[in-house]
This record gives sequence, C-alpha cells and structure tokens, in this order.
Amino acid sequence: MSLLVVGSVALDSIFTPFGETADALGGSAVFFSVAASLLHPVKVVGVVGSDYPVAQLERLSPRGIDWSGVEHAEGESFRWKGKYSYDLQSRETLETRLGVFAAFDPKLPPAWRDAKYLFLGNIDPVLQLNVLDQMTGPSLVVCDSMNYWIQSKKQELMKLLERVDILLVNDGEARELSGDWNIHRAGKWIMARGPKRVVIKQGEYGALLIEPGRTFYVPAYPLEEVFDPTGAGDAFAGGFMGYLARVDSTAHAQLRRAMVYGAVMGSFAVQGFGVKGFETVDYDTVQKRVDAFVDLTDVRLAEPLP
Amino acid sequence: MSLLVVGSVALDSIFTPFGETADALGGSAVFFSVAASLLHPVKVVGVVGSDYPVAQLERLSPRGIDWSGVEHAEGESFRWKGKYSYDLQSRETLETRLGVFAAFDPKLPPAWRDAKYLFLGNIDPVLQLNVLDQMTGPSLVVCDSMNYWIQSKKQELMKLLERVDILLVNDGEARELSGDWNIHRAGKWIMARGPKRVVIKQGEYGALLIEPGRTFYVPAYPLEEVFDPTGAGDAFAGGFMGYLARVDSTAHAQLRRAMVYGAVMGSFAVQGFGVKGFETVDYDTVQKRVDAFVDLTDVRLAEPLP
Repeated sequence: MSLLVVGSVALDSIFTPFGETADALGGSAVFFSVAASLLHPVKVVGVVGSDYPVAQLERLSPRGIDWSGVEHAEGESFRWKGKYSYDLQSRETLETRLGVFAAFDPKLPPAWRDAKYLFLGNIDPVLQLNVLDQMTGPSLVVCDSMNYWIQSKKQELMKLLERVDILLVNDGEARELSGDWNIHRAGKWIMARGPKRVVIKQGEYGALLIEPGRTFYVPAYPLEEVFDPTGAGDAFAGGFMGYLARVDSTAHAQLRRAMVYGAVMGSFAVQGFGVKGFETVDYDTVQKRVDAFVDLTDVRLAEPLP
Repeated sequence: MSLLVVGSVALDSIFTPFGETADALGGSAVFFSVAASLLHPVKVVGVVGSDYPVAQLERLSPRGIDWSGVEHAEGESFRWKGKYSYDLQSRETLETRLGVFAAFDPKLPPAWRDAKYLFLGNIDPVLQLNVLDQMTGPSLVVCDSMNYWIQSKKQELMKLLERVDILLVNDGEARELSGDWNIHRAGKWIMARGPKRVVIKQGEYGALLIEPGRTFYVPAYPLEEVFDPTGAGDAFAGGFMGYLARVDSTAHAQLRRAMVYGAVMGSFAVQGFGVKGFETVDYDTVQKRVDAFVDLTDVRLAEPLP
C-alpha cells in the first residue's frame, strides 16, 4: 500500500562532542524515507534548491525511495546548523537558512493522491492542511509538528489535528501544545482534539503510544555510543509508518509492533552523522534489533506467582 | 526466606503543588517495608528518637513488618523537609535534622544475622559495611546510596561495592559515581567494581536492570495524577526485594519480574503523601497492576512479519 511523506529535504551541519559534519543530507523527509524504505517503498514530496547534491539523494533511490515528487527550485536549499551539548541532551540551533523551503507549496503528483499511508513531516500546518486537501482519502494520516508552529500557528494546527489520525511529537511538544506537564493528561488533551492516538517520543527514554484507556511503552535501545541524535524522531516515524504500510494494517497489535520498528530505526539514526547510521543496515539487521527490543521488555510472567 | 532492611526511619514534611504534610512517616526503611510487606514479611533495623510516633509504625506491623530491630534512642528523630517543583521533576531540601540518626550504629539482633535477603538503604557506607560484617552470609545483598556519600565517602563506598550483588540507584547517582553520562556505560563501570548487576531508577521513565550483555527495561506506570514522589525509589526497592524473597530465587527471569513488582510499588508510592498511597493496596491490587504492567510493553511479536 502506498506510503507518502511530505517534509523537508535539507542540508545539516552538525557539531557533536564526537565530531562534526557539514552539509550532510538531512530533513524530516530524508530521515523518514531512509528508515521507512527498509520496510516498504516510499514516495517523497519536498523541495530542494539548485545547490542540492541531488546525486547523493539518488544514490538512496535503489532502497525504494521515489524522489520524483521533490521539486527543484531556483535558489539555496534549506540549511540547518546545530550544536549538541556534551551529553547530547540538548542542542543549540546556530543557524537556520530556509532558502527555497520558505516558499515551499507542496504539490502532490496526481498519481500519488490516493496514497493510503501519509506522513506529514514537521512543516507549516497550513501546508500540512494543503496536502490533506489534495489527498483522495488516506487510511492513516500521521502528523509531526514542533514548538515553533505551536507558538506561531496554533489555530491552524488545531484545525489540522481534527483531520489527523495520529499525532507523533516529542514530550516537550506535547506538553507545550496541551499546556499540561503530565504526559498522560497531555495525550488525553490531544486525543480530545481529533487524533485517535498520540505517539510521544521521549528520546533516550523511548516512546509512548497513547490510546483511549490504553498505553504502550517501547524503551530506547541501550546504546553505549550515541553519535548524533539528529533525525532520530523522523527515523522513528519512518519505521512506524513503514511497518504499518508493509503489513497494511492499523490494528492495535500492529501499532504496537510499529512502535518497536520506530524505536529500532531511531536507534540506527543516532549511531552515525546524518543518514550514515543506516548505511550498513538491511532488513536482517532490522529484524535482529527488533528481536533485541522484544527481549528488552520481556517479563515472561506467564507462570503464576509461587 | 528472611528479608532484612537497614535504613532510615524518619519524619517527612513535604510541600507539593497539590498540598503539604508535616511529620509524615518516612525514611528508606519505612517505604521499603511498607512495599515489601505486601509480598513477604520484613525485618527492620533502624533508629527513632523519643519523639517518634511509634504507634503509627506499630499500626503497620500486622502487614508483616517486624520493627523490633528499630532502636529507641534519646533525642529527636530524623526529620526531612522538602519542596517539589510544580511538575514534580525536581525538589529542594528545605531542612535536614539528623537527630538520633547522626549517631546511628546499626546492631543486628543475633537471630536476624542469617537473613538471606538484605537491603542496605541509603545510609553512610561505613554503616552499610558494618551491617555486612554482622551478617553470616546473605544470598543477595542489594544496596542504595546517594550523591552525598558518593562525594564524601567515595573510598568507603567503593569498598562496599565489592561486597554488593546489586547496586540500586537512580540515574543521576549512577552518572555521578561513574563519571559517565551514558547510563549503559555507567552501569558497566559499576559492574566492573563488584556488583554483578545494577538497577537504575529513572523516575517517571521507569527503571533498568543492567547485567553483563543484557538489559531489561520496565516503564513507569502511566499515572495522570502523581501526588508525591517521596519514597518511590525505596518502595521500588521494597517491591524488588519483596518479590525475590517471596519466590526465594535470583534467577534472571525472576529478577525481571522483581523489576515489575518494584515499578508497581513505586507507582503506589507516588499516589499519596508518605505511605498513604499504600493504605488501600492489598495483594490483589498489586497483582492487577502487575498485569497492567505486562500489557504496557507486550509486543506480541510471536507471529512472523508478513
């Protein structure tokens, strides 16, 4: 079943305590696609400037990523420059140059409008609404956002939420959106505004799937070396949606498994700069890590207590 | 199999955004015992001053708590006064009055020295070593500590670690002790100093059981109302040790289940001031919450991926 992502295609310059990189492939649509394509083909809608290293994108195409929905505009590509703290727990944005992304107005190729699984990466909620208007009726709409939009486009974001099946954000965003520091009450608040479910990413602590009356928790993979957290959240979304598209289901049990695939992809993302963490990852590597995740929380409480 | 705890018996005055309480039963040995006794009888070694409301302690005895190892000394009882931030994420100590606890020199009743399961609550590592010297050979020694001892009695703490089976601390303590911000490396560092395993409590995010080459994760119970985090860590320890004493085993699968019982007890602890969160809890309540924990991480990945 077709899987479509609309988001940013960027160039990231990142400083971590372990090294730095300049103009690395980045952006929500890129991280999402690299992760999702390990499970299911992906179609990407985005925009790049005339300076974008398109050949680098195209080298990823054989993975099952269709970049033909990425518009090539005159001007500079979206660039982000950031620096992480020594413990990778916080980051500072050194520079954001929107370039052609500032005028991004996503146009879906007509043949893609009936996609069944849609991920709306973190862009202006007005554009996310525009994308929804172009769709013929997706089965599952999952949407990301960020504090910037919560502050500057709250009204549009609330309108969008009414049309979204799952909001997928990090804990700080859920707290800011709901105005509630308790993450479970925040999830409830969001579900009262449209989404049937909320996925809350908690970085090194894992992620929560909040549904009415039921919560599922997936931890983060125990890594002794975390290299670069950039893109981990979008890779999580890619694993989550890639799995659901692959099994073509949104049944509760499948959503739980999709969370594990999300966490698996997030764990690969942080193991290298940009998309490098995925370079040596194939379907078997993914499955091995899925098994490791199952072991990580397996309680084996089947036998009764003595 | 006999379960023994050595720790503080205190009076806590607590301010949270939801209310306040003065001179409530508290201290590591009290929280531990109230939780553990839901699963297995507990013997307590500690000290109280002449002003302690002993009748309140004795009301808890029918749960299976033997307070006869608690020394009654002349003077004031240990008092702690603290205030939590609006989101309960941080707390400020307003006052600590050690009272009779300052001269605490734990003496184990002779009949208790052969206890099989020993929990060394967070007290001076010199005293923790003294307790160990009085034991005839426990099967499992689990030990807590805190930043204060890591800073002021590092050498004694390191000597203690050599004789401890499991160090049970929170993430900040593990980081400070090891000097490593990565919690998995911190766990490895600690295991190289004596303990075969490390339990790391992460508050609202749950807890980790780190063993050589294997990690188990239990999330925190999803609570929309958290009332008072005081004692949650000691209640966790009580659930953990109470379960192991009950099944009389330290097998890997049982340690995992013990983590769940720990998390269950931690979740009751935060639902009321002091030990109030346990007032209406019985064995059935515990089992129901254990089942809820199992559901919280159940991936049901038994069937192969389509």
